[in-house]
Amino acid sequence: MPEIVPDIASVYPPDQVTLREVGLRDGLQMVTTWPSTKGKIDWIRQEYEAGIRHFEVGSFLPRDRYPVFGDIDALIATVGALPGAHCAGLSPNKKGSEIGFASGIPEIHCVISATEAHNQANLRRSQDATLREIAEICALRDQLQSPPLIGVGIAMSFGCSIAGKVAPRAVLKLAEQCFEMGVDMVSIADTVGFAGPRQVAHLAGAMRKLAGNRPFGVHLHDTRGMGLANAAAALGQGVQVLDASLGGLGGCPAAPRATGNIVMEDLVFLCQTEGFDTRVDLEKLIRVRKVLEHEMPGEPLYGSLAKVGLPRWAGLQPASETKTTKT
Amino acid sequence: MPEIVPDIASVYPPDQVTLREVGLRDGLQMVTTWPSTKGKIDWIRQEYEAGIRHFEVGSFLPRDRYPVFGDIDALIATVGALPGAHCAGLSPNKKGSEIGFASGIPEIHCVISATEAHNQANLRRSQDATLREIAEICALRDQLQSPPLIGVGIAMSFGCSIAGKVAPRAVLKLAEQCFEMGVDMVSIADTVGFAGPRQVAHLAGAMRKLAGNRPFGVHLHDTRGMGLANAAAALGQGVQVLDASLGGLGGCPAAPRATGNIVMEDLVFLCQTEGFDTRVDLEKLIRVRKVLEHEMPGEPLYGSLAKVGLPRWAGLQPASETKTTKT
Repeated sequence: MPEIVPDIASVYPPDQVTLREVGLRDGLQMVTTWPSTKGKIDWIRQEYEAGIRHFEVGSFLPRDRYPVFGDIDALIATVGALPGAHCAGLSPNKKGSEIGFASGIPEIHCVISATEAHNQANLRRSQDATLREIAEICALRDQLQSPPLIGVGIAMSFGCSIAGKVAPRAVLKLAEQCFEMGVDMVSIADTVGFAGPRQVAHLAGAMRKLAGNRPFGVHLHDTRGMGLANAAAALGQGVQVLDASLGGLGGCPAAPRATGNIVMEDLVFLCQTEGFDTRVDLEKLIRVRKVLEHEMPGEPLYGSLAKVGLPRWAGLQPASETKTTKT
Repeated sequence: MPEIVPDIASVYPPDQVTLREVGLRDGLQMVTTWPSTKGKIDWIRQEYEAGIRHFEVGSFLPRDRYPVFGDIDALIATVGALPGAHCAGLSPNKKGSEIGFASGIPEIHCVISATEAHNQANLRRSQDATLREIAEICALRDQLQSPPLIGVGIAMSFGCSIAGKVAPRAVLKLAEQCFEMGVDMVSIADTVGFAGPRQVAHLAGAMRKLAGNRPFGVHLHDTRGMGLANAAAALGQGVQVLDASLGGLGGCPAAPRATGNIVMEDLVFLCQTEGFDTRVDLEKLIRVRKVLEHEMPGEPLYGSLAKVGLPRWAGLQPASETKTTKT
């Protein structure tokens, strides 16, 4: 088995909070227009310039049915050329993972749902079948000369749009099974924004214990306004990886009422107020929204910081002077 | 000196979180159109029906210059007729408090700023002069046969739009001086939304110790998207009183970039997810927004819950079926 532990520690340093830009994948799942490849590359490069290092660049899905992700190879190459940057691609199944392996992407992110009902709706197979497939994907990965990391996101970890409440032990059981199969990192996802901070603190705390030295992530949506409160709760429990998207782009095909991911700009501000060294230049980050405004003029962008600017005492210009007036 | 301690405990029960609707005051300070008196009365009565019990109904300011608050007596009478409801009015100075005393309102809420610069900008006098005036107001109150409660809100407690950073000890010193003068409750206000949850937890924890058995409040604005994360942090430190406004109406005359108060509907949801018994019917509460939509059609309303509805597992209808489609 290849020695991948050092890779994980360098990709997800245990003493830092890693902020993953998932807008290029989660943010583009529900939109009707999407950025050009050049626009996506600008988005990545400018966000990298602002300090973001992790990008989920798309899904490994059939290109004829999901043309929005048809340029994923160009984005993998873009991120690969940026020193210290890391990218991942979502894979819904073994076939997608095989395409992912062939692409040379350094991380493949698989999905499973916390409930059987949502797993069937989203992936059209049982949780058990999905677990078996993840095991197969890990086995295939282990045969590669340059094996990518395998992550798994557990959708609906905090409540399911179909099945209702979700027991934390069901999520933890899935996470444990994934780790045992050789998955490198597990994320718990509030796919439709059902969670509150107490629930997030509880499950993230349990994940912290379960994961041990392995990284785990929390993927939040701001559907019911709790996104940043939940992120603060997760940070309080030592979460190492948080997903967000520029301007709060995002959604879930199996949960049509779910609005966007938490807003990257506001999350960075939260992390900074909480005392984390994000190494992100917030003014630069806010300016990257212009790429989205230009490429997706009809798409609503969210976020408070872009509207009102940084606190005066932060010594930075208010947003009006940086001309990011959208939303 | 009159025996007012039992009144405080019944108005602000120490074992409960009190949610104060401040939209009728803070929410109407910055708007160009405002609800009719009938509209305000509908707002109060319907929000009371939904379970809210505390209303800040206006400011005691000259009616010719602040006609928006010209109907405060009618609102005091409205709240007074609702069993278990409580109302407060803001008073910027001694003259306003005298008008307040004459109105028979059960609580007068004075203001002081955490910084000399904002105090001068907002009240046109020094902090010392404001403290002396609060002492005089308390002395006048003590001569009344039915003395109202006196609260003080400390504006800019978490950072000042003029002076920048604010030392927590400056806020605590003011709070202590107010309590020593006979003020019944003190609120710390993030007037322009500068705070993060760690800062709120720190200052609210210190206020908890300072206040002892006396209630203290936290008044938050959602200017930079941290509002609910900050509310969660305050709840974690045992805050007893949180201000919010229906639809997130709000602002500050001396801080023109400050957007609204935290959204009452979303705050109620937060409190419920945190395990507090709010006694608020969220579906009813969301429907009260219709009053604002009808009375102030040009005014933006905020809030996530009104847009997407309660989580499915809450056993309640999604918002689309309750027809609160705004925002």
